Amino acid sequence: MKRTRATSTNTIKGPGFKFAGVACGIKKSKKKDLALIFCERPATAAALFTTNRVKAAPVLVGMRRMRRGIAQAVVVNSGNANACTGARGLRDAEATCRQVGARLGIDPGLVIPCSTGIIGVPMPMEKVRSGIERAAASLSADSFSHAAEAILTTDRFIKVASATCSLKGKKVVLAGMVKGAGMIAPNMATMLAYILTNAAVEHRSLRSILRRSAEESFNRVTVDGDVSTNDTVLFLANGLAGNSPVRRASREERVLVRAAQELMKELAIKLVEDGEGATKVVEVFVEGARTVAEAKKVAFSVGNSKLVKTAFFGSDPNFGRIMAAIGYAGVPIRPERIDIAFDNVTVVKSGVGMASREKKAARVLRHPSLRLKIDLHQGRRSAAVWTSDLSYEYVRINSAYRT
Amino acid sequence: MKRTRATSTNTIKGPGFKFAGVACGIKKSKKKDLALIFCERPATAAALFTTNRVKAAPVLVGMRRMRRGIAQAVVVNSGNANACTGARGLRDAEATCRQVGARLGIDPGLVIPCSTGIIGVPMPMEKVRSGIERAAASLSADSFSHAAEAILTTDRFIKVASATCSLKGKKVVLAGMVKGAGMIAPNMATMLAYILTNAAVEHRSLRSILRRSAEESFNRVTVDGDVSTNDTVLFLANGLAGNSPVRRASREERVLVRAAQELMKELAIKLVEDGEGATKVVEVFVEGARTVAEAKKVAFSVGNSKLVKTAFFGSDPNFGRIMAAIGYAGVPIRPERIDIAFDNVTVVKSGVGMASREKKAARVLRHPSLRLKIDLHQGRRSAAVWTSDLSYEYVRINSAYRT
Repeated sequence: MKRTRATSTNTIKGPGFKFAGVACGIKKSKKKDLALIFCERPATAAALFTTNRVKAAPVLVGMRRMRRGIAQAVVVNSGNANACTGARGLRDAEATCRQVGARLGIDPGLVIPCSTGIIGVPMPMEKVRSGIERAAASLSADSFSHAAEAILTTDRFIKVASATCSLKGKKVVLAGMVKGAGMIAPNMATMLAYILTNAAVEHRSLRSILRRSAEESFNRVTVDGDVSTNDTVLFLANGLAGNSPVRRASREERVLVRAAQELMKELAIKLVEDGEGATKVVEVFVEGARTVAEAKKVAFSVGNSKLVKTAFFGSDPNFGRIMAAIGYAGVPIRPERIDIAFDNVTVVKSGVGMASREKKAARVLRHPSLRLKIDLHQGRRSAAVWTSDLSYEYVRINSAYRT
Repeated sequence: MKRTRATSTNTIKGPGFKFAGVACGIKKSKKKDLALIFCERPATAAALFTTNRVKAAPVLVGMRRMRRGIAQAVVVNSGNANACTGARGLRDAEATCRQVGARLGIDPGLVIPCSTGIIGVPMPMEKVRSGIERAAASLSADSFSHAAEAILTTDRFIKVASATCSLKGKKVVLAGMVKGAGMIAPNMATMLAYILTNAAVEHRSLRSILRRSAEESFNRVTVDGDVSTNDTVLFLANGLAGNSPVRRASREERVLVRAAQELMKELAIKLVEDGEGATKVVEVFVEGARTVAEAKKVAFSVGNSKLVKTAFFGSDPNFGRIMAAIGYAGVPIRPERIDIAFDNVTVVKSGVGMASREKKAARVLRHPSLRLKIDLHQGRRSAAVWTSDLSYEYVRINSAYRT
């Protein structure tokens, strides 16, 4: 499996943005729990929100705001999701934006609110208010990693990445931070991601770039198949690079899509690496499919199977469970055509298990990252998804998260 | 939650059937691993098989045999699934039936083969052959529980039940045995079930009774959402009770459906109780739905959520995870109408969490069985499914199953 390159946190500066991350007591642990992202001038903005029908208050507020297609600040708290909080939750999210707007001297309608954490508990607004005051006072171009830390919940480490590209001779920078760990599933479950660039991009083009990049990255990872109430991916382009605005379907757009995909894929794989209790990352690569949709369906069926994921944890090349998960994916596969390999060790050939290869395959499975290759021999399309294993630690984290 | 009545194993005799259960060495543990069920005369037979596109060899053979609508013997081995074994697997399944037929003096076409266990390893036919010889020699009306034991894999206990009813004054008996434990999911994943009755039933009616009973029982339980390659539910009616054969859509059919549903529901809930690593059984009851299909969809979305199931294990009344699972069920629910209660303790009212009730709800969750009630307030339909919690033990069993 291709590993993503390491990115040193210290080298990342948001391109023309300022950041803050403070602890204001929403989390009992006293860890950082409130982040601000601010741009000197309004940025073109595109966003993707959770597909869950139960949406947290800040998601409802953010969706409304995004209709304008511009934003100038983001306020994120961790520790409380402000979900299932009714009318009071909506008032709290609006009040948070008003305070940020007043403190930064900008229109509150340009402030996007985000929350992540426990569901169903009213926001501790006293703490939030004091957090915003302190965060606003400490905004700095150098505090990217503080903000990336303040958005975390059960994550073990901060997850950031950067990329550059050249648009008609102008060098532009992209930087991203993401929070995930639990509930990572297709369609970006409990995930907050902020992708920032100094490129100038027209709104229609930015939306297209975000959608296409997320499809190949955040929508291709799974930890437990659950979809959260709070997911938000926000893409802000402030134009400070001085390029002429990137237009829909232009050559520059293609360049920017490639850079954004690379960046978001790096962040997405980090999400899986930091999946709750994950001890390894497995790329499930399905080829020989008739369509990309069918390849993806098979890959997710395998990547989401609890039995396959526990076998990964036990370094058990249990191809029977993989065959079973392929078989119930809802795709008209032909079992007698299927080949399965762990890295280069084939364990199923034409639908028949090769028990003699198991010891060799088990050695591959002891690696922290590997590729599970499934060839359906039905067509020419392929798709990859990334998944983690299911460990004791996953159960510990999720059975003890609140109690 | 309504608990099923206990059934003493010793009181169950197959109604006009003979049984055997022996250890022939397919399992390394030396536990019983080969069962025979035999009827003196051919019985009317109906069956449901796995919906997985990857079907084990005995399933393919069994499906072909069931076209005749009659059967006289069932041979079941545990320890090896005879799946992903190609042409050799089919030859082995056929040879097994031929041997049983020859040994019992019946048409091999009336012998139904079933297997459960490890996938992708050729059947150890020497052992199977000696097992069949010994099982055939030990057939007895009193060995129901031996057969019920020989079909188990990671199950902790045998799961059997019986029921009676009266058809036009004739008392008829039903007896059932089931094997499950792992991979229990909608549409009866890795499950073998044998339902036997001495009633006389016409073939069309028997198929209808089986389909309707399974829909309310085996298709309403979930342990891990995986669907196996080997599922088989077989219903045999030998007619020895002497009633006039039950006809399709008759009053007698309705009586028999009720008895079969009761029996299969009891077996299905035992499957969940014996789910791998299960420490509790939760009935997820969804009401106020517009259709039964929508109620079922919501109930399975909640019952299959890894996050909800780990919260059950931790006795955490985490209504946020439940709300999230309702929200991604793919049903157009209205979050602001939803009520959620554990037994009689309401934790969500009109979509808003009631944090003050959590301690009381946590006490309910410490019980080994409970009811999670979800009211969608959208209509008058309801559905119940049964699920277990997700524990450390589940991970241990499934990560260490083979290695």
